[in-house]
Amino acid sequence: MFLPELQLYKERIEEGLDSYLPGSSCVPQKLHEAMRYSVCGGGKRLRGILTLLACEAAGGWWPNALPAACAIEMIHAYSLIHDDLPCMDDDDLRRGKPTNHRVYGEAIALLAGDALFTQGIKTMVSCIPLGLEREYHQALAELVAASSSQGMIGGQVLDLAAEGKSLDLKELMEIHRRKTGALIRAALRMGGLIGRGDPEVMEALTTFGEALGLAFQITDDLLDLEADPEVLGKNTGSDLKKQKATYPRLVGVGEAHRLAEEEINRACRALAPLAEKGKLLVALAEAVLTRNH
Amino acid sequence: MFLPELQLYKERIEEGLDSYLPGSSCVPQKLHEAMRYSVCGGGKRLRGILTLLACEAAGGWWPNALPAACAIEMIHAYSLIHDDLPCMDDDDLRRGKPTNHRVYGEAIALLAGDALFTQGIKTMVSCIPLGLEREYHQALAELVAASSSQGMIGGQVLDLAAEGKSLDLKELMEIHRRKTGALIRAALRMGGLIGRGDPEVMEALTTFGEALGLAFQITDDLLDLEADPEVLGKNTGSDLKKQKATYPRLVGVGEAHRLAEEEINRACRALAPLAEKGKLLVALAEAVLTRNH
Repeated sequence: MFLPELQLYKERIEEGLDSYLPGSSCVPQKLHEAMRYSVCGGGKRLRGILTLLACEAAGGWWPNALPAACAIEMIHAYSLIHDDLPCMDDDDLRRGKPTNHRVYGEAIALLAGDALFTQGIKTMVSCIPLGLEREYHQALAELVAASSSQGMIGGQVLDLAAEGKSLDLKELMEIHRRKTGALIRAALRMGGLIGRGDPEVMEALTTFGEALGLAFQITDDLLDLEADPEVLGKNTGSDLKKQKATYPRLVGVGEAHRLAEEEINRACRALAPLAEKGKLLVALAEAVLTRNH
Repeated sequence: MFLPELQLYKERIEEGLDSYLPGSSCVPQKLHEAMRYSVCGGGKRLRGILTLLACEAAGGWWPNALPAACAIEMIHAYSLIHDDLPCMDDDDLRRGKPTNHRVYGEAIALLAGDALFTQGIKTMVSCIPLGLEREYHQALAELVAASSSQGMIGGQVLDLAAEGKSLDLKELMEIHRRKTGALIRAALRMGGLIGRGDPEVMEALTTFGEALGLAFQITDDLLDLEADPEVLGKNTGSDLKKQKATYPRLVGVGEAHRLAEEEINRACRALAPLAEKGKLLVALAEAVLTRNH
């Protein structure tokens, strides 16, 4: 899915994650190893890259947003570890590798998830670039609200409750607005705040984030039906097996593709006021439509 | 264990928790109900009370520390929910009631724990009394460090790894310094920071917290052997059953009582520079020795 122009940002996020996480030789080693296994083992870094690009689009210096980009990646990794646990989705494969609990056992996986969330907050509180205390405080408020019982965690609960039930499109969108949308929206808003975006820029980034989040989820559902499991790095067909409500299931494959395209167009239109500065975000949004993992 | 003088603080913490937590009628209701089940269902509020008393001892106005006191109680509740899960200690009873996962199922209990941690951070970030932004930022840094992979979560991992192994006294103390000690120490330091304590006061509170945390753990081990399960609100003898290393097991019951007393004396001596202002903390420390739950 990713463009060569984004490689630099991705690499900086990976270096940042390495430096903000406790080393594998720190006590307790097994816990720190498990944390690194899930965070450092690949991933698109979509959320972190969005934060950096949003900072730049708002007129800021993107390295200032690196701690925030790494924090959101840690929190994303925590949510995946907990989602994969036997009492949740009970998945064996993630990013082409065994899930955390398949390698380290359930207890360590649970605690590695807890510790990654904590480490994400710690990074936001203790690694603030000079002079950006106020902006990081606002960005932290965004991040925490998006991760909360009324954001991401709430979406996960609604998703669990919906298994085996028939949902309409509005209900499905409401689940995803929380489960994946809230964190993607926060990624954009955090970058915008750290880049000191004015209200017009913040509104553009917010609309962009909301539309992109929805398009991302629709393509996620489509990949579960259509992708090559080798490239995707996880088993496909799991939504069908679990009788999960998905966009293709509710509206058909063709209409789901059309919906994703419509959301991407909406996302890109929202960035019009940013002109040249929104270029990389627009390119990334367009790449979401053709992603294969 | 608690003194009548502390009843007011306890009640204010309980009112605060009620107001800082999303209502049970907020979507998703089941999640918010599960969060409230564990937070609002009793407990000594030791950590929260320590934060309020430390703020007062440092010369601050204690209601200013109420959001911090509630945050630490939410984080304590999250740690208990996760500790009780089947993949961890697999406990059925907590504070005289079925554990969270026995009532709401494992998936919701896991997510309720996650959401309580998030809500604790949210309270620290979004409910700051006017003019205390800097102090709350410092207090949040303390809280997050104490909850991290090198604090409370790390202690939990070391504790799990030690099950069935023989430990010496030094190793046991190291586990408890992290598992329960770090958060108790942070409770004191958060209150001290919010009360704008000078370095001498901060040092007194820190030593008090470290000694109290250790004494609290020793009496916890003793209660597991000696208490009435009805009064304690959980099953006793569970350490023995799990072959856990405990103070009474390592040094004998009599010596464990003596050790606890020694730590409480050390805690109280540390507060000497605070004179009258440390009175309630001293009274609380002395009550730990005679607690029955």
